[in-house]
Amino acid sequence: MAEDHVDVLIVGAGPAGLMLATWLAKCGVKARIVDKRGTKIFNGQADGLQCRTLEILDSFGIGHRAWRESNHMLEICLWNPDSNGVIHRSSRLPDTIPGISRFQQVVLHQGRIERFFLDAINEFSNGGVGVERGVLPTSLEIDQSCVEDPDAYPITVNLRHLSEEDATPKQSSTMSNGTSAQDGLFRSNLMADDTADLLKTSELNQKANTTETIKAKYMVGADGAHSWVRKEIGLKLEGESTDYIWGVLDIVPITDFPDIRSRCAVHSANSGSIMVIPRENKLVRLYIQLTTTSKIQGQDSRTDRSWITPKVILESAQRILSPYKLDYRKLDWWTAYQIGQRVGSSFGVHDRVFLAGDAVHTHSPKAGQGMNVSMQDAYNLGWKLSSVIKGHSNRSILKTYEFERKAIAHALIEFDHKFSRLFSGRPAKDIMDEEGISMDEFRDAFQKGNLFASGIAVDYGRSLIVTKPVAENGASEATAATTSTPVNGFQDLAPGLKVGQRIPSVKVLNQSDARPWHLQERLPSNGTWRLLVIPGDVSQLGQKSRLEKLCGQLSSPESFLRRFTPNSARYDSVIEVITIHGAPRQSVDVFDFPEVLRPFHEVDGWDYEKIFVDDQSYHEGHGEFYKTFNIRRDEGCLVILRPDQYISYVGKLDDYESADRFFSEFMLPQNNLTLPKV
Amino acid sequence: MAEDHVDVLIVGAGPAGLMLATWLAKCGVKARIVDKRGTKIFNGQADGLQCRTLEILDSFGIGHRAWRESNHMLEICLWNPDSNGVIHRSSRLPDTIPGISRFQQVVLHQGRIERFFLDAINEFSNGGVGVERGVLPTSLEIDQSCVEDPDAYPITVNLRHLSEEDATPKQSSTMSNGTSAQDGLFRSNLMADDTADLLKTSELNQKANTTETIKAKYMVGADGAHSWVRKEIGLKLEGESTDYIWGVLDIVPITDFPDIRSRCAVHSANSGSIMVIPRENKLVRLYIQLTTTSKIQGQDSRTDRSWITPKVILESAQRILSPYKLDYRKLDWWTAYQIGQRVGSSFGVHDRVFLAGDAVHTHSPKAGQGMNVSMQDAYNLGWKLSSVIKGHSNRSILKTYEFERKAIAHALIEFDHKFSRLFSGRPAKDIMDEEGISMDEFRDAFQKGNLFASGIAVDYGRSLIVTKPVAENGASEATAATTSTPVNGFQDLAPGLKVGQRIPSVKVLNQSDARPWHLQERLPSNGTWRLLVIPGDVSQLGQKSRLEKLCGQLSSPESFLRRFTPNSARYDSVIEVITIHGAPRQSVDVFDFPEVLRPFHEVDGWDYEKIFVDDQSYHEGHGEFYKTFNIRRDEGCLVILRPDQYISYVGKLDDYESADRFFSEFMLPQNNLTLPKV
Repeated sequence: MAEDHVDVLIVGAGPAGLMLATWLAKCGVKARIVDKRGTKIFNGQADGLQCRTLEILDSFGIGHRAWRESNHMLEICLWNPDSNGVIHRSSRLPDTIPGISRFQQVVLHQGRIERFFLDAINEFSNGGVGVERGVLPTSLEIDQSCVEDPDAYPITVNLRHLSEEDATPKQSSTMSNGTSAQDGLFRSNLMADDTADLLKTSELNQKANTTETIKAKYMVGADGAHSWVRKEIGLKLEGESTDYIWGVLDIVPITDFPDIRSRCAVHSANSGSIMVIPRENKLVRLYIQLTTTSKIQGQDSRTDRSWITPKVILESAQRILSPYKLDYRKLDWWTAYQIGQRVGSSFGVHDRVFLAGDAVHTHSPKAGQGMNVSMQDAYNLGWKLSSVIKGHSNRSILKTYEFERKAIAHALIEFDHKFSRLFSGRPAKDIMDEEGISMDEFRDAFQKGNLFASGIAVDYGRSLIVTKPVAENGASEATAATTSTPVNGFQDLAPGLKVGQRIPSVKVLNQSDARPWHLQERLPSNGTWRLLVIPGDVSQLGQKSRLEKLCGQLSSPESFLRRFTPNSARYDSVIEVITIHGAPRQSVDVFDFPEVLRPFHEVDGWDYEKIFVDDQSYHEGHGEFYKTFNIRRDEGCLVILRPDQYISYVGKLDDYESADRFFSEFMLPQNNLTLPKV
Repeated sequence: MAEDHVDVLIVGAGPAGLMLATWLAKCGVKARIVDKRGTKIFNGQADGLQCRTLEILDSFGIGHRAWRESNHMLEICLWNPDSNGVIHRSSRLPDTIPGISRFQQVVLHQGRIERFFLDAINEFSNGGVGVERGVLPTSLEIDQSCVEDPDAYPITVNLRHLSEEDATPKQSSTMSNGTSAQDGLFRSNLMADDTADLLKTSELNQKANTTETIKAKYMVGADGAHSWVRKEIGLKLEGESTDYIWGVLDIVPITDFPDIRSRCAVHSANSGSIMVIPRENKLVRLYIQLTTTSKIQGQDSRTDRSWITPKVILESAQRILSPYKLDYRKLDWWTAYQIGQRVGSSFGVHDRVFLAGDAVHTHSPKAGQGMNVSMQDAYNLGWKLSSVIKGHSNRSILKTYEFERKAIAHALIEFDHKFSRLFSGRPAKDIMDEEGISMDEFRDAFQKGNLFASGIAVDYGRSLIVTKPVAENGASEATAATTSTPVNGFQDLAPGLKVGQRIPSVKVLNQSDARPWHLQERLPSNGTWRLLVIPGDVSQLGQKSRLEKLCGQLSSPESFLRRFTPNSARYDSVIEVITIHGAPRQSVDVFDFPEVLRPFHEVDGWDYEKIFVDDQSYHEGHGEFYKTFNIRRDEGCLVILRPDQYISYVGKLDDYESADRFFSEFMLPQNNLTLPKV
C-alpha cells in the first residue's frame, strides 16, 4: 500500500480548506488536500464576502477577480408594515459602513471563490498541489509520544479513493434539503474556467477503491458541519437549534418590488420576513421565513420537511411581499434550513490536528458570515503552521489559533442568535405590543451588526504575538502562549493602528517613482512579518538621527533581521522592513535613507520597493497616513505586523530592544549561530 | 488543395492584428489570423500604453490585467547640464496630465499585451479562433468586378505553412539589429500562461509546406513595417530617415542615479541624450543616443551597424549619465535603430483590403506611441467591418477608416519629428547658442506632447458618423462618406462631450442598486451603438414630459430602435439606450421611467442595468456628470456614441427626428419591413 509523508493533510476543499492550501502553497509547505466530493460546486451555497475577506483575497492576488465578478451591495432597505399593515420602505442604510475598508461587501457564489483559490494554489505550487477529489479518509491515528517533536510525523491517516458514483457532487451538508434545481441549469451555470475541472471527474474511476496511508506532521479538518475529523478526535459542537425554519430561493425574479436590486430586510405584518440579497448574473437570493410554529425535532430529519418545495417557499414570499408581485422563470438553486448555533468546545488536539470553518462552528446563513469566518479561521492558522513547519518559529504560536478564533466563533453565534430573533419575530404593532419586535431596535441592531459583519472589527486578545497590556478586567488570554517578560509597546504613538486589529489601509507613495499604493497592497500574504518603520519627518534632524540609530542596530550582524533569516534566504523573506516617512517626497531621495531600508542585491541593485512617503499623489489624492492614524511627524513609531496583517506591536521609533525581544520569544535562530539572546 | 471562406483574413498577429481579431471575435464575425512567426514574442519590443489604450483594453475586459502587471509611470524628470556642464534635475512633471482619464500611462512589454488579446479572442470565440502561426501568404488576388457587392468574396489568398525552422521567432522587423540577449534569459522571462503557446510550436511541422487557398470578403494587413500586404496592393510609405542613431537596452540597472525609477529625459552637455523608461520586473529601458554625425545610407543596412553592441551602448549611457554610475548584471533585450518617419499614401484599396499599424506608418519608438496608434487603427476599423459584414450598416462607413486614421498618422509623425529633433539635439549653452536646443523649449514641447501622447486628444473629423458642422475653414472631410442632408446637432448642450472625441468618463450610480460605475465601464466594446438619454432633472415636470415624448417615439414600432434591430436579436444588440438622469436618486425608482428605458424580458424581467443617476455614492464620491460636462439639468440632451466610444452627435433631448435621420444614413433596415424613411 502506498505511503506518503506530508507536512499538512487538509481534509475538505471548501473555502476554509482551500484558503489553508493557498497559504501553504504560497509559503512553500508540502501539503495535500482531499475532498470526498468528485467536483467543486458550481452554484448555490454561501455567497456573501465581507470587506475583510476581500482584503485577504487581495493579499493572495485574487481579490480583484472576486471584486470584478461579484455583485456589489451598496444599500440596505428596511421594509416594515405601515399603520395599515402594508409594507413600505422605512429606511435606507449604506450596506458597508463608509471608510472602514477599501472594499465593500459583495456577493458571489462559493463556487467562484473556490475557483480563484484553485487557480492560486496551482500558481503558487507551480502545479504541484491540486485538490484530490473523491477521496475519503477512513482512519486516523495520533502517536501522542511525539506530538511535541517538531520534526515528527505523529499523524497516520488512511485514505480511500471513491468511484465516480460515490463521489457524485451533493450539496454541502451544512444546509439540509439542498438540491440542484435542474440539471440543465446546473450545467448552464458553468463558467469557462471550470470546465477543465469537470472533465477530471472521469479520472476518478481509475483509482477507485484503492487506498493509501499518509503520515502527516499536521492535519486540518475543514470538512464541514458533519466533520469526520471532528468525530475522530472526539470533539463535539455545543449549542442548540431554534424553531425557525427558512427557505432559500436563488431566482431571476420578475417583480414590481422596486428595491429588488438592494439588500432588503422585509418584515410583513403577519406573514413572516424576507431577506433579499441581489446577486451576480441577475440572480437574487431570497431568505424566506416559512413558519415559526411547527417545532421540528432533531437536526437532520429530512422526512419532516418533505412539504417544503420551491412552490411552497415562493408562495410564502408572495404573501410577505404583497401587494407587490413576485414570480420567476429561472430557478438556480433552493434549500431550506433550521436556524441553530453551535461551537466546538475545542478547536483541535495536541496542536497537531485542527478544525476550521463549519467543522467547528455553525449558525444561520442569513448574515452572510459563514464562508467568511471559515476562511478567516484558515487564514489565521495557515501562516502559523507554515512558520513552525519551516523552522522559523517554535510551536508555541500554534496555541493562539484556538485562542483567537474561538472568541470570534462565540461572537458570531451571539450576533447570529440576536439577529435571527429580531429578524424572525413579528413586528410590533405599536409601542404597547410587547411580544412584537420593535422595528427601531431592529434597525439599530442591523446598523451595529454591520461593523461586526464587515470582519473589520476583529480584535485579537493578548498573547505572545499580540502585545497588549495585561488586561485589567482579567480578560482571558492565550495563557500557555504568553511570556514571563511581556513586551509592552506604546499604543498611544499610533492611536489609529490598534494592536490586535488588522492594519487599516490608506494610500502611500513609493518614494522612488511616486506611485500610489494602498498600504495593504504592499503587505501581500507570503508568510513574512513586517517591521513598519514610521520615522515621521526625516527632514528634521532629531527624527533623522533617531532613524539612523535604529538602522544602525538593524544592520548589525546580531540584529533580529539577521539572526532569524537563513543566510541562504533573501533579506526580506522572514521579516520585511518597510518605511513610511513623513517628509515631503521631493525633499529627499532613496539614497538619503540608510541602506538597511533599501537593501542592495548584487544582481537587482538597490531595492526601490521598500521606502514610501505620506504625500500628495498626482492622480489619486493624498492618503494622509500620519493624520489618519494620528501619528506625530515629530515622533513617529515602530510597528510590527503579523504575516496576516494584524498588528502585534506599536512602540517607539528607536526602541530596537523591544522589537528584538518580541521576535526572540518565538522565532528560532537560523544559520547555526549561537548568538546571545538580547 | 484546401479552400476556406472567411469574412476577414488578418495577416500579422502583433498588437494591431490581435486588436482586430479581438473585435471581430467579440462581434461574432468569422475571421482567421495568420502570422509567419512560430510563436508570440516574449520580451523586448514596444512597451508604453497610453491612457486611451488602457481605456480600450478595459472595454474588452482586459484593461485590468495590463493595469495590474504594468509599471505605472507617474513622474517625468528632466535633467540638463548646469552651468558647469554637470547634469542635474531641472524639472519634475506628472507623466499623465491629471484628470484626462481614469488611467495613467503605464509600461508593459508587448508580449503581455498580446497574451491578453489571445486570451480574449479565445474567450469571445469560444475557442473557435486562434492565431495560426508559421503561416505565410504567398499570393493575393482581388476580383475588382465584385468589390461593391456586400455578399461577395473578392479576395483570394494562398497561404503556405512554414516548418518550425522557418518560423523561428525573430525580433520584429520594425527595429533593426534586434536580437535576444541570451537564450537563458529568453526562457526565464516566460510567464506561466505563455508556456502552453510555446508547446504549440511543435505542432508546426505537421503542416509544414502544405498550402491552402482562402476566399475572403475583407483582408487586413497588420504585418509590420515591411508589410507583405502593402507591397501586394502596391502602396508605399512616404517620408525619410534622419541621421540620428539610437541604442536601446532593457536592463536591471545598478546605479546611483536617483531617478532611475522615473521616466527621465537627460540631455548631457556633449555626450548626447538618454530617455529612461522604468519597466515591470525591475527592468529599465534606456534609449541612448549613439551618434549624431555618421550618416548611414539606406534604411536596413545592418552591415553598417556591426559596431553597435550592448557594450558600446552602455558606454554611451555611462558618458551621458556621468558623474552617476551605471552598470548591469541582467540584460533582457537590446537593439538599435535609426529615426525615420513614414506614412502610407493610402490605407487600403477598394475598401476591401486595409492596412493598419506599422504597415502604414513608422516612426521612432521613444515617444511610446507606435503600439498604441497601431492598436487604435485596428480599434477604429474593427467595429466598422463587423457592422458591414453583419448587414447592419452599408459599406459607406468603411471610407471613414482612412479618413480618420490617416490624419492621426500624420499628426503622429509630425509630433515625433519635432520631438526627436529636440531630444537628439545638443542643449544650448546659453541664450546666444543658436545651434543648441533650448531646454525651456524642450520642456514646453514635452508638456504639450503629453496630451497628444495620451491618445485622449484624438478628434475625428466630420463624416457621416461624426456630425460636426461643416467646417468654415474648409478642413478636409470624408467626402465620399458625407451626406447630402447633414444632421447638425447642438454641441452647446454638452460642451464637455465633444463630437469627434472619445466620451470622457466620470462615475455615475446605477439607479436600482446605487452602485457607482465609471461611465466607460458601461460602454464595453461589443459592437453596439449607444443612445445616451440625458434627461436632466426628471423630477421637474417639463423635463419629465420631454422625456416621455422622446420615449413615446422610441417605443414606436417604426422607431430606429426597432427598424435596425433584427426581430430575433436582443433589444440592445444594435443600439443600446442608456439613461443618465439628474434627479436625486432617492426621489425616484426605476418604475418611474418609461419602459423603453428599462425593457422587459420574459425570462429576465425588467432590465435594471440601463438607468443611471448623477448623485453622491456611499463610498466613492460624486461623479458630478452634469457639472463636469456642463449639461443643464433643466435642459438635458441626447448623445449618440459609436461602438468605439467616440461621440457622433449631441442634440436636443426630444429631437427624435435628428437621431433617426443620423442612423438612417448608413444603417440597413432589418426584418424585411419596408418602412418609410423618416
